[in-house]
Amino acid sequence: MDSKVLLKKDMKEKQELVNIILDRFLPRKDEYPKEVHKALRYSVFAGGKRLRPYLTMLAYCLFQSNPEPIAPVAAALEMIHTYSLIHDDLPDIDNDEYRRGKKSCHAVFGEGVALLAADSLLVSAFELVTQAEIDESLRLRFVKEMAQGCGINGLIGGQMVDIESEGKKVDKKTLMYIHENKTGSLISLCLRFGAIAGGATEKELAAIESYGRKIGLAFQIIDDLLDIEGDPVALGKSIGKDEEQEKATFPSAFGVEESRQQAADLIQEAKHAMRGFGDKAVLFEALADFILSRNS
Amino acid sequence: MDSKVLLKKDMKEKQELVNIILDRFLPRKDEYPKEVHKALRYSVFAGGKRLRPYLTMLAYCLFQSNPEPIAPVAAALEMIHTYSLIHDDLPDIDNDEYRRGKKSCHAVFGEGVALLAADSLLVSAFELVTQAEIDESLRLRFVKEMAQGCGINGLIGGQMVDIESEGKKVDKKTLMYIHENKTGSLISLCLRFGAIAGGATEKELAAIESYGRKIGLAFQIIDDLLDIEGDPVALGKSIGKDEEQEKATFPSAFGVEESRQQAADLIQEAKHAMRGFGDKAVLFEALADFILSRNS
Repeated sequence: MDSKVLLKKDMKEKQELVNIILDRFLPRKDEYPKEVHKALRYSVFAGGKRLRPYLTMLAYCLFQSNPEPIAPVAAALEMIHTYSLIHDDLPDIDNDEYRRGKKSCHAVFGEGVALLAADSLLVSAFELVTQAEIDESLRLRFVKEMAQGCGINGLIGGQMVDIESEGKKVDKKTLMYIHENKTGSLISLCLRFGAIAGGATEKELAAIESYGRKIGLAFQIIDDLLDIEGDPVALGKSIGKDEEQEKATFPSAFGVEESRQQAADLIQEAKHAMRGFGDKAVLFEALADFILSRNS
Repeated sequence: MDSKVLLKKDMKEKQELVNIILDRFLPRKDEYPKEVHKALRYSVFAGGKRLRPYLTMLAYCLFQSNPEPIAPVAAALEMIHTYSLIHDDLPDIDNDEYRRGKKSCHAVFGEGVALLAADSLLVSAFELVTQAEIDESLRLRFVKEMAQGCGINGLIGGQMVDIESEGKKVDKKTLMYIHENKTGSLISLCLRFGAIAGGATEKELAAIESYGRKIGLAFQIIDDLLDIEGDPVALGKSIGKDEEQEKATFPSAFGVEESRQQAADLIQEAKHAMRGFGDKAVLFEALADFILSRNS
């Protein structure tokens, strides 16, 4: 089977697994208090690609045949991602009215409800990790690393420098800090958890983490490019927001062509990092290509 | 020594212990990214009474002589409390400009920074629990219970119904739901963690939890009363906000006198719940009285 077709099939299967876990774990829409449950289901099931949980399961399946034991951890990472999007979209931060082709959470449910719904996703992610069918000490380690990866030296640090840098000319170091933390830290964590739980050696883990850093940065560069040249219909959100908000982006720092080249180079480097896995890395390679060519 | 003096001395000692842990654990103000670190230190060291971590250490010290092993868990619970205050004060929710006699976090640092600083306190609380010098399985259990206590069936559920109920006439059931979840769930958790880690039997734990439910509710009733009759200088915040925002409160549902009587009854019941501990409960009794008579 063509590796692109294989990737599509594998992503679909693993997406379904993560959707089942999220659906089982999240309270029903009609549970009390209704508004917050409706809001968090609205955002969690808004058509996300489930890229992050897929990475966790993909890394796990390099070493194990069945992704189920790691799926709750993967689902927890998707909840973290969704929480960060809801808070990012709030008027307090980016003020985005649309996300994935639908009104953003606060635009539908109001800012207070959206804020609290995201908070509840964040805490629930920690609860879900404690429930994974993996070693107790591994669960505790993942709680700790997840907190660190989401925190001021990870995701939140990236969001913070992002808003601080609006309207300012930023140097390459700051731009890298934003991208590596805001996008890269969670993507790295996803791969890391899968690899560790799967039983990777230190050397294997280092290769997978290197792959993660490269695709994470490439993913963000493509994101920046799509905000300039993307199709709003395919993207499901308005474009041109970065320029309007004077965001620090790769195209604004290096130009469109240079940025595209950097993304392509990173994708090649990511694939190269996985060469030690031989044929087993086929889905990692196909995924790297998918990230480079994505239009949404 | 008079029990009131004893309580004051004990609170001061344990406050200092928790302050040391918070100071060591939180990044320095000048660490990158500076704004978020300044903001979270501003709120964490804004002069809170450290009531919640005190409860954890108090319950622990019913069974153990040295509070240090549980102090990181206690400090984590204070971080959860501070996170919830920062989000509550945001214009998205209660829009409070003052807290503890100082400008609230967003009034000083802006809404985006305040939002993210609180998010980082929330995730850091989970990290801190993983570092306590208690059994690994106990740490994992506390992570799980903390997530549940903070979540949609605890703290966040209470905040949610609170904002949903603004401007509506609410029944007693809804009022109790708000108070039990918004204030009670975290207070119960604090006592519960201390008691469990200390080695309480099921029966002892039940007594301590009963004490927690009573003082938690009394604490919130007093809070409602202070918003009507309190001294803004002592409180460090403006009063009359509940009425202005048409909040569901005890005085609005039962009147001032009846609410005061209910608080006094709850305090008596709380003290009664601890009778099995004999002389060891002296600080619990003094604390219950302190909650009833507090003016800030």
